[in-house]
Amino acid sequence: MNTSSVISLPQGVRDILPDEAEKIGSVESGIVAVFAKRGFQRVITPLLEYVDTLSIGMGEGLKERVLKFIDPSTGRVIAIRPDITAQIARLAATRLKEMPLPLKLCYNENVLRLSEPRDRDGKSREVLQLGAEFISAKASPSADAEMISMAIESLLAIKLKSFKIDIGDVGFLKSVLETLKLADQERRAVKEAIAIKDRSGLEAVLADCAAPIAEGDRALLISLTTLYGEEEVIEKAAGYTTNPAAHERLDNLRAVVDIITQNGHGAYITLDLGEMRGFDYYTGMIFEGFAAGVGKAILSGGRYDNLLARYGYPVAATGFAFDVENIVAALGAGR
Amino acid sequence: MNTSSVISLPQGVRDILPDEAEKIGSVESGIVAVFAKRGFQRVITPLLEYVDTLSIGMGEGLKERVLKFIDPSTGRVIAIRPDITAQIARLAATRLKEMPLPLKLCYNENVLRLSEPRDRDGKSREVLQLGAEFISAKASPSADAEMISMAIESLLAIKLKSFKIDIGDVGFLKSVLETLKLADQERRAVKEAIAIKDRSGLEAVLADCAAPIAEGDRALLISLTTLYGEEEVIEKAAGYTTNPAAHERLDNLRAVVDIITQNGHGAYITLDLGEMRGFDYYTGMIFEGFAAGVGKAILSGGRYDNLLARYGYPVAATGFAFDVENIVAALGAGR
Repeated sequence: MNTSSVISLPQGVRDILPDEAEKIGSVESGIVAVFAKRGFQRVITPLLEYVDTLSIGMGEGLKERVLKFIDPSTGRVIAIRPDITAQIARLAATRLKEMPLPLKLCYNENVLRLSEPRDRDGKSREVLQLGAEFISAKASPSADAEMISMAIESLLAIKLKSFKIDIGDVGFLKSVLETLKLADQERRAVKEAIAIKDRSGLEAVLADCAAPIAEGDRALLISLTTLYGEEEVIEKAAGYTTNPAAHERLDNLRAVVDIITQNGHGAYITLDLGEMRGFDYYTGMIFEGFAAGVGKAILSGGRYDNLLARYGYPVAATGFAFDVENIVAALGAGR
Repeated sequence: MNTSSVISLPQGVRDILPDEAEKIGSVESGIVAVFAKRGFQRVITPLLEYVDTLSIGMGEGLKERVLKFIDPSTGRVIAIRPDITAQIARLAATRLKEMPLPLKLCYNENVLRLSEPRDRDGKSREVLQLGAEFISAKASPSADAEMISMAIESLLAIKLKSFKIDIGDVGFLKSVLETLKLADQERRAVKEAIAIKDRSGLEAVLADCAAPIAEGDRALLISLTTLYGEEEVIEKAAGYTTNPAAHERLDNLRAVVDIITQNGHGAYITLDLGEMRGFDYYTGMIFEGFAAGVGKAILSGGRYDNLLARYGYPVAATGFAFDVENIVAALGAGR
């Protein structure tokens, strides 16, 4: 066999050479120092997990989104971890259950994930993650705000100049959609059109729905393709709906934004009420960070209040992870 | 399904809780600082490699010692990396080939390996490794000594009190065995008896060999079950053989030991000429570190002068890796 023909790497993984690795190291130590100052303690989770253990937290859909193989000794299916949050939920719900709350944990690990659902190209990618989880007895806007402010402080500590954290709430759209009589496929099409802010596509989807949609609901859904920007989008959205669950989500979001603003970080956030990206386990506020010159998110996170309960420990939690390679790319691109 | 019945981890991996993770973090940063001071630059290699790419360097036997699965998109067999040295050899021989020598690289990664061949229980284990590789145009005792002294300095930097580095040379026994007419199975039995220092077992194996073994060779092989300890074992071994290749290995080992002693690190080393453990790619000096209170090696390494050539770049190299979890165990046990 010709040697050079086999010296290639599997799709989705790569070598990181000294210059970039050094930048990754300095991003890591800068962020780790902020996490430590805020009282987050590192845990190290295993590279492999049984798929059925992961799916307790991440849902059955997970099975199509992980690299997996059969364990020869037990016959069970093992996945290379696609996500650390679900592992930490399992760990917190079992071996850390006796520790006092809140539990503030962080990690610095590699995960292997299939590409984001939105891309749907089925390719895996090794991602170097640096993340934090805040587990508490009850959900609170202050915990969500603390996580977002810590993300902002971390980025400022490593001297990233131009970035924004885009905040939404999966509960808002969910509570709106729950009141509508949509078939599963219609619901999916509505979500997708809103996700890509495709107003005309969304209008077409809504016009084709089997059950009629009230004009108020239609206007609200259409408005979600434009409800992003400064804090006033919360008030605009509130004007479109009388749904109490939706209002509760907006009130919570307003409280989160107020605390972040009081922390002096208001300039770094934007709001996007049409945002629903991310793992199935998110239940409330979600956020994603973007930096000038890099098309992909540099961080993502959100609140996941049911995930630990699925492992037998009914407590609330919120967290996020940085994509370290994307941050290094942003530092290179940022001016 | 009962939740608790599936909340278990695959064999060979584990969760590391905050107390231990913190110790791991401080061991990592202490050692990384020593590596950096010595001019070693970090690289980050991929979690996955094609098995045929890895076997170029690690040999066909590798296939039984890795966790592997078939890549659905190409049909090729992918392994979770069992070793970073072979990956760095591939990387140095391809994308780093134009860089000036010597090339001093280091890494801090997780690998997944089946248990050491000597254990033969076929179980995998995730290992957190922190290692360094010194790649140069030609082999030299000074490069080997630099690596061992750097390992010692690292352990002193993190305040490990009681440890020893056990140094041998795979080339010594190999050159002795090459002159004997042994069947493969006899050779294996001889190596195994020497490895576990089983003098009476070795005598029985030698007595059963099909071809007669000269008394001088027999005495040398038997002596290898006791040729460990201080520097004088080199002179003792030299007295047992006139084989020029064996003498060359002993001369090299003497030079390595002299430099380490000049570095003020003589008290931390012992010699073991019967030692042959480790990967197939080792060609010369090998070493392994042990600490009081921990049964397993805290570091291992050696010279591998053919590995880069197998990837098309005929240069010499020497390196080692710490097992970070075993070091933390040693710090806990060490008094």
